[in-house]
Amino acid sequence: MKQLLIVAHGSRRAASNDEVRVLAAQVAQHLQWSAEQVQVAFLELALPSIATALDDCFKRGVNEVSVLPYFLASGSHVVSDLPREIAAAQAKWPDKTIHLLAHIGAADRMVNLIASACD
Amino acid sequence: MKQLLIVAHGSRRAASNDEVRVLAAQVAQHLQWSAEQVQVAFLELALPSIATALDDCFKRGVNEVSVLPYFLASGSHVVSDLPREIAAAQAKWPDKTIHLLAHIGAADRMVNLIASACD
Repeated sequence: MKQLLIVAHGSRRAASNDEVRVLAAQVAQHLQWSAEQVQVAFLELALPSIATALDDCFKRGVNEVSVLPYFLASGSHVVSDLPREIAAAQAKWPDKTIHLLAHIGAADRMVNLIASACD
Repeated sequence: MKQLLIVAHGSRRAASNDEVRVLAAQVAQHLQWSAEQVQVAFLELALPSIATALDDCFKRGVNEVSVLPYFLASGSHVVSDLPREIAAAQAKWPDKTIHLLAHIGAADRMVNLIASACD
């Protein structure tokens, strides 16, 4: 079973975190996956944490998780904080596989997305 | 002459800020605009500031600028900080037009972008 974990920064504004949750539901629908297969976690300021979200996935029998850093630029969160969190989770679950994907800002089609926003 | 200003958060990592600058150059190319027509500014931690970037545009005769918040979720930066900066610039340049666009995370095609990232 495929599993995607979208990791966002997290905000003090509940509406901002909910925006990411809605997006995850839309992504699941787009991929024709179950809602459970596209989860959200937050680096800080909101829950669940990355550790908790990965624990939940592995406890329900998922063997492989793709983690998508929902960040636009490769700042210290992407370069240091996320890899550290993932390494800790991997050490806790040595028999499971965690794929840390490139941050969303590095996606080829981001250029098109920006260009279309100013049409 | 059309003018886009991409406003990113800004990072202590120069490479992260450069990533946004490279993206702006790619957007200009994609839109077949000049490099000058797609500029970058940072909310904090990097330069130019939003105020400086808008000053520069208006001083060289641009009458209308579209500001794209390069943020994924509508946290306090998008909801409070950016509108405040834009209002201050608008007060300084009453004869110019500043369009504050929706943040990039609200783009319809973001769902597709995320879905394609985990293919």
